[in-house]
Amino acid sequence: MPQAPTYSDVEQAAARIEPYAHRTPVLRSRLINEELGADVVFKCENFQRMGAFKFRGAFNALSRFTPEQRRSGVVAYSSGNHAQAVALSASILGIPATIVMPHDAPPSKVAATKGYGGEVISYDRYTEDREEIGRTLAAERGLTLVPPYDHPDVIAGQGTASRELFTEVGELDALFVPLGGGGLLSGAALARSALSPDCQLYGVEPEAGNDGQQSLRRGEIVHIDTPKTLADGAQTQHLGAYTFDIIRREVTDIFTATDSELLEGIRIFASTMKIVVEPTGCLGFAAVRARAADLRGKRVGVILSGGNIDAARLAALLPA
Amino acid sequence: MPQAPTYSDVEQAAARIEPYAHRTPVLRSRLINEELGADVVFKCENFQRMGAFKFRGAFNALSRFTPEQRRSGVVAYSSGNHAQAVALSASILGIPATIVMPHDAPPSKVAATKGYGGEVISYDRYTEDREEIGRTLAAERGLTLVPPYDHPDVIAGQGTASRELFTEVGELDALFVPLGGGGLLSGAALARSALSPDCQLYGVEPEAGNDGQQSLRRGEIVHIDTPKTLADGAQTQHLGAYTFDIIRREVTDIFTATDSELLEGIRIFASTMKIVVEPTGCLGFAAVRARAADLRGKRVGVILSGGNIDAARLAALLPA
Repeated sequence: MPQAPTYSDVEQAAARIEPYAHRTPVLRSRLINEELGADVVFKCENFQRMGAFKFRGAFNALSRFTPEQRRSGVVAYSSGNHAQAVALSASILGIPATIVMPHDAPPSKVAATKGYGGEVISYDRYTEDREEIGRTLAAERGLTLVPPYDHPDVIAGQGTASRELFTEVGELDALFVPLGGGGLLSGAALARSALSPDCQLYGVEPEAGNDGQQSLRRGEIVHIDTPKTLADGAQTQHLGAYTFDIIRREVTDIFTATDSELLEGIRIFASTMKIVVEPTGCLGFAAVRARAADLRGKRVGVILSGGNIDAARLAALLPA
Repeated sequence: MPQAPTYSDVEQAAARIEPYAHRTPVLRSRLINEELGADVVFKCENFQRMGAFKFRGAFNALSRFTPEQRRSGVVAYSSGNHAQAVALSASILGIPATIVMPHDAPPSKVAATKGYGGEVISYDRYTEDREEIGRTLAAERGLTLVPPYDHPDVIAGQGTASRELFTEVGELDALFVPLGGGGLLSGAALARSALSPDCQLYGVEPEAGNDGQQSLRRGEIVHIDTPKTLADGAQTQHLGAYTFDIIRREVTDIFTATDSELLEGIRIFASTMKIVVEPTGCLGFAAVRARAADLRGKRVGVILSGGNIDAARLAALLPA
């Protein structure tokens, strides 16, 4: 089993992805700052390539493949941003990519994955096990599996988002990070320890799927059923071994957000900040708004993890 | 009559607004570049304070008031972004502001103007003349009128947007600028002459209100009825004396865009670039897409003039 990642791995990942990833902008809103009485900085990973932070981890992992692994190819399973991130990274690096996606994945995501040159293999998410399919493909075809979050190279890659934020704005009092499987949050923890050691670090997950919060309280990884939530990027059933080990040591607390809080965030981002953020990307801001009283006068970072939402879905979520 | 503005005025305006205005980000989209076969840079004035470039010109004009003018106050007439720009600038500079707005202006814009501390005076846009009301208020109360576009300080302020763009990305082959009364376009002309003299400069106005195109062809200012168009920021009836004088000398050509081309732009910006752009802000990109064949291999700048669109209206304009 590979070694747990450290901040040094985040720095190496930053050098690897630098020619290919966007250094995403950090935005502020005076209106939001006045309303909250805090200085809030938003790290806009909705402007990252393929529309989400996932490109960072996938590209870092794939760029560490041996020549042999590159020739044989990569396999990944995902219905969302990780699929596109692996397909795009593989196309940049000239690695054949096989992506296992549920047959009812949004057509736009299937099309985007194929557009990057990935081979898409469909499965029935109610009767088939995607991890099993992935492992079988890996064994039969000699492919290397890149998991969506529980891998040191993926975690180190995701950590580059928080590294860029701290590098640009300096130290913070608190940082709020969306939490699904924990790749983005554990990467943030590595950057925080090195660059802003006094910063409180918070993960934020959907209320309907608070396995991270439960895991942190019990001191062990809690498994749940796939939660029903607008935050389709955080419908994970459990943290990973690597991510939980970092999160349990480093994270101050884990909060939750309801679907209506995420909706409110989508609307504020569109109206006030003129940006499109997917529901999962609104988790951090929802927790900040709910805890504004504790954050007055503080310097607060919020990671907006992605912006991949169909225009029709966005229209349906904005107020009538 | 004050002297026509020069690039030196743009530089002075840049120094005046620098502590108060945002230096807005310049964004690129690889997907759009691949589709168009060009290198396109978007200057995002939708991220400017109060959501549009108008803050630049208004703040520059108000900051040049004499102490006497500051004490007496400013008056402006506008149903849109200029009203908010004057109200916000006046509140920053401690100048009393009176804004003449149509009684059927969007409640959100009236509320924003009042929120910045402006006194709002309503008029009936079908039976009353706003310029007459503005002049009467100016005379009776000793207020200084700041017009929405036809003033050297306003033009110089708007020119700072293009100045920032050229400073950040270097010279361009072509620059596309939304055109209403011509403040943004004539300001762009001043910056272009100094910083990228070989750059072709294009104004883009709504097809329903092509008075600028007609004026350029006839060599004199053409007046039209208020056009019906989605681009509510470009419903002007004629160019100004200052703006036309610069435009006739400096601008390569003026193109038009249909409402359906603006709609397509709103959707592409939301889906591909994750940003909210108001219809008027989509004028430049619409012209670029229509002329892609002529722009292959070129470095192309596009100014996104603003992002002020109600969330409900945005929802209605996105595809169902």
